[in-house]
Amino acid sequence: MKISELSQRAGIALSTLKYYQREGLVSGGARRNATQVDYDETHVQRLRLIRALLEVGGLSMAAAKEVLRTLDDVATPLAETFEVAQAALAGRRPSGGGSDLLAEARARVQHLAQSRGWCVSEENPGLDVAAGALEGMLAINHDPSPEYLDAYADAAQAAARADLQALSLLSRQDQIAELMVVGTVLGDPLFAGLRRLAQQDATQEIFSITTTREEPQP
Amino acid sequence: MKISELSQRAGIALSTLKYYQREGLVSGGARRNATQVDYDETHVQRLRLIRALLEVGGLSMAAAKEVLRTLDDVATPLAETFEVAQAALAGRRPSGGGSDLLAEARARVQHLAQSRGWCVSEENPGLDVAAGALEGMLAINHDPSPEYLDAYADAAQAAARADLQALSLLSRQDQIAELMVVGTVLGDPLFAGLRRLAQQDATQEIFSITTTREEPQP
Repeated sequence: MKISELSQRAGIALSTLKYYQREGLVSGGARRNATQVDYDETHVQRLRLIRALLEVGGLSMAAAKEVLRTLDDVATPLAETFEVAQAALAGRRPSGGGSDLLAEARARVQHLAQSRGWCVSEENPGLDVAAGALEGMLAINHDPSPEYLDAYADAAQAAARADLQALSLLSRQDQIAELMVVGTVLGDPLFAGLRRLAQQDATQEIFSITTTREEPQP
Repeated sequence: MKISELSQRAGIALSTLKYYQREGLVSGGARRNATQVDYDETHVQRLRLIRALLEVGGLSMAAAKEVLRTLDDVATPLAETFEVAQAALAGRRPSGGGSDLLAEARARVQHLAQSRGWCVSEENPGLDVAAGALEGMLAINHDPSPEYLDAYADAAQAAARADLQALSLLSRQDQIAELMVVGTVLGDPLFAGLRRLAQQDATQEIFSITTTREEPQP
């Protein structure tokens, strides 16, 4: 197919597609003659993957490149592919610096993981991501209850099992690697969106829609 | 306290603090004399909240302003405060355009919510966020199983209940509003980080760390 059809099939503007080519994210098509290049289904798939990472998953161009490079290298062990996807995602969040509060938050997240018998390394970027969130709560003097943290850990564990279950249904190694990356990137917004929906439902149960806030008591 | 002490207590650089003041996020202190302004604990708290929204939660300046304006207006009903926080977060994700795949993804998310009896409005931004993620999966020809989507919906529901449970323990309306906003923003990275940790644990169970990917079969 021509580049114009490729652009349409992948749902990506022609100018954006050319930008991705200049950045080296997509390989060129087969040259048919001096003026025409042929693209096929593999190009459509590749562009859809790029779109999922950049536009839906919100990765930076640098992080997407790193992830794609790992995917393209079939010699990379699967566990390492996972790590690269996780690190790319972690890069989206600015680190909170080295405050005392962050150290406390980190220790509590580690304790939470240990109490569940999770086997995790010190380098797992999830540690900093979760600790950063917990630090933000502690910073406004909101100390989450053990029940709250357990509920989130339960939710995370159930989602992670579903992720791995989906992977175990695939047999082709390149498909497993691709789903690892895309599932890691897109599982977050999937959960985030569903949580908003569930929150609205739960809010209606607990707070009346028309309740007006009163003046705060000193 | 002086502005230098305020900067230190809140863990925010002086230049950043002054930027927040120029942007109108923090009110000025009490003027003690022509050259000195006094700040108190309310300023420390306010800056920590701003830091949680901007640096940890990753909101844009415009979104953070909107959220803070809603928090400052005590006449805003609680349910509306929630909606503003959700909309601010949704703004972080670029919308996927109006593709057929997105329409299909949206319909499936709506069906998922309905099947659980969730009472949600058409305008809930979570619908687009979750649909965008699902579209990204469909775009790479990965059609998640009903079990996978149910696992994520279960996880989201459990987290949303924990969110609301934490809110119900508070009595001061201004604290409830603040936790609604911060919990909405920080619950996502808390879950995301914990999911990375749980994934690592589950990966070790299923895939050997040293497994090298084979060449893909055509």
